[in-house]
Amino acid sequence: MKLYDLELSGNCYKVRLFASLADIPLTITPVDFMQGEHKEKHILELNPWGEIPILQDGKVVLRDAQAILVYLASKFGGEAWWPSEPHLKADVMQWLSVASNEIQHGPNTARLIEKFNIPSDMALCVERSERILELIDNHLSTHDWLAAGRPTIADCAVYPYVSVAHEGNISMLQYANISAWMNRVEQLPGYVSMPGN
Amino acid sequence: MKLYDLELSGNCYKVRLFASLADIPLTITPVDFMQGEHKEKHILELNPWGEIPILQDGKVVLRDAQAILVYLASKFGGEAWWPSEPHLKADVMQWLSVASNEIQHGPNTARLIEKFNIPSDMALCVERSERILELIDNHLSTHDWLAAGRPTIADCAVYPYVSVAHEGNISMLQYANISAWMNRVEQLPGYVSMPGN
Repeated sequence: MKLYDLELSGNCYKVRLFASLADIPLTITPVDFMQGEHKEKHILELNPWGEIPILQDGKVVLRDAQAILVYLASKFGGEAWWPSEPHLKADVMQWLSVASNEIQHGPNTARLIEKFNIPSDMALCVERSERILELIDNHLSTHDWLAAGRPTIADCAVYPYVSVAHEGNISMLQYANISAWMNRVEQLPGYVSMPGN
Repeated sequence: MKLYDLELSGNCYKVRLFASLADIPLTITPVDFMQGEHKEKHILELNPWGEIPILQDGKVVLRDAQAILVYLASKFGGEAWWPSEPHLKADVMQWLSVASNEIQHGPNTARLIEKFNIPSDMALCVERSERILELIDNHLSTHDWLAAGRPTIADCAVYPYVSVAHEGNISMLQYANISAWMNRVEQLPGYVSMPGN
């Protein structure tokens, strides 16, 4: 099973983190993002979005980190990481949406601006980041894990860009509950870190 | 089962559309968005995000349209709308992410600017809308439905804001495959429309 990967991408790291936690073997295929390889024909044939990560498992080809997490958890990860009970599954799903929406367009984009000089509206990213980080911090004041009362793919989808938010000049000092939760994630058996973390 | 709803919200319409297609009874509770009711205490207690839709099913309370779709489909909708096979489920999930990410921050935000005078960067919304609409149109050139070869909650998550993209001054004339797909959605038994559509 092949992961088209960029070491510095938080979206790719979501997949590497979960695969390591759930002991799912992946063959890592680095994509040369700086040389624009993700916009070349062989990648666009796998993913017309021209983005990584991409997972290839035989004939199955998937884009989008959240979808790859759902696939890996459904096929290999079992009940622990992606619950079958509808209300728990939907609880996890709420956080997969947060990863695609508020995190992607908040801390993730702030980091793209600061670390990779991608042009975007920094003031808007800071405002969005502060809003979602406060919501997450409040949630974690009464929960050890984001969803379902245990570590799930929700944590794997949200942790990466929160853990490197400082690289987008987002101050994390006031979020004590997020800090404690990040420590819990980092104590999970099989945890792997991301460069810059 | 109660849906806290705003008639003009595409996110609320995602839930109303799917519930109607899958014949799931909902009690609609209108929220007075224009008067800011979604930021009042009784709503914030259900959803700290201060957003609608919110679904309440006994003790289960869910925010985020995509999570609500997953809940309703898992609990009531059956295999047809939310496949159990990992690669098909992940195929649907790719489009739930598109709804939360590219559609939310493209056609949805363009409509908020044009129809509700919410300040944001229109040029960026147009650029994002044109990118994702072209990707969707290309996908639909070889697929009748977004995912899994049949109507699923992927279509229910993506259709609403695509069908009212013109309200955000996004030109839809060049997307013949999207137009044909919207017609297929509109022919599904139980289809209901949205105001402005």
